Amino acid sequence: MSEKSPQVGIIMGSQSDWPTMKHAAETLDTLGISYEKRIVSAHRTPQRLVEYASTARDRGLNVIIAGAGGAAHLPGMVAAMTPLPVFGVPIESKSLKGQDSLLSIVQMPGGVPVGTLAIGKPGAINAGLLAGSVLALNDKKIADALDTWRKNQSEAVALEPVNDI
Amino acid sequence: MSEKSPQVGIIMGSQSDWPTMKHAAETLDTLGISYEKRIVSAHRTPQRLVEYASTARDRGLNVIIAGAGGAAHLPGMVAAMTPLPVFGVPIESKSLKGQDSLLSIVQMPGGVPVGTLAIGKPGAINAGLLAGSVLALNDKKIADALDTWRKNQSEAVALEPVNDI
Amino acid sequence: MSEKSPQVGIIMGSQSDWPTMKHAAETLDTLGISYEKRIVSAHRTPQRLVEYASTARDRGLNVIIAGAGGAAHLPGMVAAMTPLPVFGVPIESKSLKGQDSLLSIVQMPGGVPVGTLAIGKPGAINAGLLAGSVLALNDKKIADALDTWRKNQSEAVALEPVNDI
Amino acid sequence: MSEKSPQVGIIMGSQSDWPTMKHAAETLDTLGISYEKRIVSAHRTPQRLVEYASTARDRGLNVIIAGAGGAAHLPGMVAAMTPLPVFGVPIESKSLKGQDSLLSIVQMPGGVPVGTLAIGKPGAINAGLLAGSVLALNDKKIADALDTWRKNQSEAVALEPVNDI
Amino acid sequence: MSEKSPQVGIIMGSQSDWPTMKHAAETLDTLGISYEKRIVSAHRTPQRLVEYASTARDRGLNVIIAGAGGAAHLPGMVAAMTPLPVFGVPIESKSLKGQDSLLSIVQMPGGVPVGTLAIGKPGAINAGLLAGSVLALNDKKIADALDTWRKNQSEAVALEPVNDI
Amino acid sequence: MSEKSPQVGIIMGSQSDWPTMKHAAETLDTLGISYEKRIVSAHRTPQRLVEYASTARDRGLNVIIAGAGGAAHLPGMVAAMTPLPVFGVPIESKSLKGQDSLLSIVQMPGGVPVGTLAIGKPGAINAGLLAGSVLALNDKKIADALDTWRKNQSEAVALEPVNDI
Amino acid sequence: MSEKSPQVGIIMGSQSDWPTMKHAAETLDTLGISYEKRIVSAHRTPQRLVEYASTARDRGLNVIIAGAGGAAHLPGMVAAMTPLPVFGVPIESKSLKGQDSLLSIVQMPGGVPVGTLAIGKPGAINAGLLAGSVLALNDKKIADALDTWRKNQSEAVALEPVNDI
Amino acid sequence: MSEKSPQVGIIMGSQSDWPTMKHAAETLDTLGISYEKRIVSAHRTPQRLVEYASTARDRGLNVIIAGAGGAAHLPGMVAAMTPLPVFGVPIESKSLKGQDSLLSIVQMPGGVPVGTLAIGKPGAINAGLLAGSVLALNDKKIADALDTWRKNQSEAVALEPVNDI
Repeated sequence: MSEKSPQVGIIMGSQSDWPTMKHAAETLDTLGISYEKRIVSAHRTPQRLVEYASTARDRGLNVIIAGAGGAAHLPGMVAAMTPLPVFGVPIESKSLKGQDSLLSIVQMPGGVPVGTLAIGKPGAINAGLLAGSVLALNDKKIADALDTWRKNQSEAVALEPVNDI
Repeated sequence: MSEKSPQVGIIMGSQSDWPTMKHAAETLDTLGISYEKRIVSAHRTPQRLVEYASTARDRGLNVIIAGAGGAAHLPGMVAAMTPLPVFGVPIESKSLKGQDSLLSIVQMPGGVPVGTLAIGKPGAINAGLLAGSVLALNDKKIADALDTWRKNQSEAVALEPVNDI
Repeated sequence: MSEKSPQVGIIMGSQSDWPTMKHAAETLDTLGISYEKRIVSAHRTPQRLVEYASTARDRGLNVIIAGAGGAAHLPGMVAAMTPLPVFGVPIESKSLKGQDSLLSIVQMPGGVPVGTLAIGKPGAINAGLLAGSVLALNDKKIADALDTWRKNQSEAVALEPVNDI
Repeated sequence: MSEKSPQVGIIMGSQSDWPTMKHAAETLDTLGISYEKRIVSAHRTPQRLVEYASTARDRGLNVIIAGAGGAAHLPGMVAAMTPLPVFGVPIESKSLKGQDSLLSIVQMPGGVPVGTLAIGKPGAINAGLLAGSVLALNDKKIADALDTWRKNQSEAVALEPVNDI
Repeated sequence: MSEKSPQVGIIMGSQSDWPTMKHAAETLDTLGISYEKRIVSAHRTPQRLVEYASTARDRGLNVIIAGAGGAAHLPGMVAAMTPLPVFGVPIESKSLKGQDSLLSIVQMPGGVPVGTLAIGKPGAINAGLLAGSVLALNDKKIADALDTWRKNQSEAVALEPVNDI
Repeated sequence: MSEKSPQVGIIMGSQSDWPTMKHAAETLDTLGISYEKRIVSAHRTPQRLVEYASTARDRGLNVIIAGAGGAAHLPGMVAAMTPLPVFGVPIESKSLKGQDSLLSIVQMPGGVPVGTLAIGKPGAINAGLLAGSVLALNDKKIADALDTWRKNQSEAVALEPVNDI
Repeated sequence: MSEKSPQVGIIMGSQSDWPTMKHAAETLDTLGISYEKRIVSAHRTPQRLVEYASTARDRGLNVIIAGAGGAAHLPGMVAAMTPLPVFGVPIESKSLKGQDSLLSIVQMPGGVPVGTLAIGKPGAINAGLLAGSVLALNDKKIADALDTWRKNQSEAVALEPVNDI
Repeated sequence: MSEKSPQVGIIMGSQSDWPTMKHAAETLDTLGISYEKRIVSAHRTPQRLVEYASTARDRGLNVIIAGAGGAAHLPGMVAAMTPLPVFGVPIESKSLKGQDSLLSIVQMPGGVPVGTLAIGKPGAINAGLLAGSVLALNDKKIADALDTWRKNQSEAVALEPVNDI
């Protein structure tokens, strides 16, 4: 594995998913984890999907974060073609508000797992954190960054709500 | 197109989908339409999926009927890789009773259509009939068979319900 | 069949469905497919519905695209009265966001198929493309147009998301 | 209006709806209201639907009770073709347990009303009672029968639950 | 029955339901049907509810139209206390968009019917029309008004959609 | 308050709710809390409802536990007529499995609270425990019984799952 | 128990829940009930949760009102660690509009009750009122305040809706 | 980290979850991954939860698989107290069939991730496989076992469905 290859691949079905998925990227930035970001549409670029998923491990990626909306096939199809851990982020869809995205991602058949996060921005943040948890198992620096992140998060919670926010 | 190649490909994600999908096959039998039936799992046999979908037109198929359950990616992924009309049948899933299957199949993004039928057996029958409607546009024999089928269906409806059924 | 008759009939339950259904029309335009567009309300103009559906084949139509919202009966009732392939587009409804439209269209009983597309604009685009797939089976020009459309679609997908969109 | 014509028409989409709809019939029997029962499938017998609905008033019917399941179009289509009050009973469907039937019946657009009752047997009973309420407005005998029925119902409620039932 | 007493009672759980329920009133106006409108909250004014419902028939009302939202108990509780036909209008609620209102109104147990209309404005219009259908059974003038209304509605449907609306 | 009057009233809409609601009774038995059990149908016995709810406090009851299914109006209507704390148990309904019961009970408007528990048996048990929590605030014996119950519950949880159960 | 300790603890998972939960506080103010308000995040500050819940009774609190959204674990986890009555308020979430919050709070297993109120502001108001009902059992002043509140509420309901609101 | 400590902790809220969760265990067995299995009820044994979660990393666990049903708080609460990757399995619940479990697990707020799998047995199998994917990143033996498992899975898919299964 090339040391220069990024650790995480963030992929999404469309440019319009980026305002959500950038929160995964920002979270990885905070944890000091390298990543690449790509548009890989299961439906509009199936060949890109096949190539991306089937070469991911050999290229040195460790974790794939995949966001998609509606009949969201990207996370599951990537998981079908790589043994790497795949984390799915259901994008909020226009009519059904991500209920379709969620079910399309999480209800995978036994044999091909996708670790699914919450709909929308919280899910994207958490996909970054979960990738951090996985990488932290063998990377003391990431583990420390994650511990710091979590400690900061806890300490940032005020004791009492205030009106002027 | 070889005269021997079947007109319709019936594919499904798993052997367990056959008790539903056989109703599509039986409907095609009734209309005198040739077909092949295959297990093509988007998740467990992604290479088979790619090969099946990308060669379907050249092999002479005219219509693809695809059944799948849960996070049902088969119909949409086939539609991503062939310009043939693809009709999707949501298989009734264990916990969510096909609500997940339905949304995973029908909520395709603009650009890659799957004509989706009802959950379960009625959907499988109707996928066969819809394939018949498509083929009937250029096949007088199928058109006649379909007309007969529809006429028989109408005539078989009794005027009054009876208790002993 | 008169050469002048359009190939596809786009019908909808109400003027208010047109902002959605025009995407079907635009897609057919792109593929060089002729069509007519009509308001046919199953509930407010049932006689128009009967006349439209029962004469559709003889008038030379090949495919019917029907959009409707709420208790959306138009696609299914048309399918009850014509052997032509009928593709249904669930219009996003005010309160239930098209969940009612979707179920009213897709859950047809065995015997009368409606190939159902996604809720709203993506479904309307895809209804046009699916009609194109059907007509392409016997029309080399449409087949080529569809292939070009699909190729363009794939090539238009950027490799990497950008912030400024 | 012929004195011999029944007051209520009970129609349903299929023989399989009768085990539910017979509860409407039995309720009308109890109230001394005459009725006819017919299978009228909106999808399989659209011509019968048109004829039944458009002649209902002239034949002397006062109320129509219509039961249907899945993409349940019968009640709404009848309401489109008769000014008589139409009461709809959503039949419990196999996969979605009548959620599809309910939305397909109740979510009618402004202009064509269907008074919708509960899913399944309670809805069928209540359709009979609601027809009774309507007819009681101008029929002292039915009004008395309905009052008796309601009084009996109230008195039949035990004060305390018991274990051995 | 006093000739001066209105024919229909329109009741609602709260002032905030009036923007929806006024469409029932306007529809009755169009049909020349007299009505009263009242705020009767099942939860905040239970005594008013009891009094209103239990005296409705004796006061000369023929039909009750009841609108309510959320845990919508008004239509069902009125139906429990009067033999008059009761039609329920589910008001669109803030979080669940009327899904709670709909189920709270329509899922009545066998024995106490509420004829339920669609969520929101279409339901309110249709409650007025359904009341008209009921009253038309014994009032030629209302029957004629309803026929005219329906004829006008059909004729107002344009043949073809236009862009500039 | 008479020392003999029970502390809790368990009411339910129908005899058929008792197999669920008896779990509330058994829980109260365990905690040494006195109760009465009554069938009070909001729809079939509205007068009994009014009388029960409006006299509950004066009769010496402290808490009311109300179970109902479908369009479940009992808990909310009782809460409308008594200032006592009312806890609602959604009974699992036939078609919608208690989703209708839950929404009909929990979605009360601001002003009339019903503390709602889970659908079915767990909800009935918890209604008993919650009544216990309330009464324990001023009854040391009940507080002790509840503490014991909770301690026993915790200690009864095995460390490791076993196959033969 | 110190006389100075507040009677009710209002806790919430996040500052962003306060615009909803302040309605509980305002309701308690109206009833003359003392309270404290705290941000206690089950997920971000689990130690604070443990400490808050396990010391609540000894600190003299009588009732806990807990609001949370999404995978809302706060009310249930508090109920797991205190015998005090816990009332849960599902906060309206961004994508699923509080359906997730509601189910996460109300569907507690038998053994650990949370009395759940409606989604959002009405639920927060009602949590305050329900706490009032509980405290009123042993506090004549609160009982009187509650009676007054309820009486005022009933009297504030106008008889007839008006257009200009 | 002690070499003897298991790599994965499988925890569940109740003995009744084991028939589902044992499929996670069997999957880990197949991949040669060591694990422990524990009943840790967030609600009935909150102290055990705190202890288990807060010591998990120091005890040498690498991944936690947590199954729970209904208001399923276990996975999220564990994730709140450990930086290890946590994978959640929604157990199928009685009334809502796991829809409550799924939403309670997956809709975590940004900051505390739970990688959620499908409802029931497929989710349990996939939790085991996903744990394998994570551990395979730094364990060649597990990586090989996983590759073999996936290859076997693909090869076990028959080409054509048969009737006699």
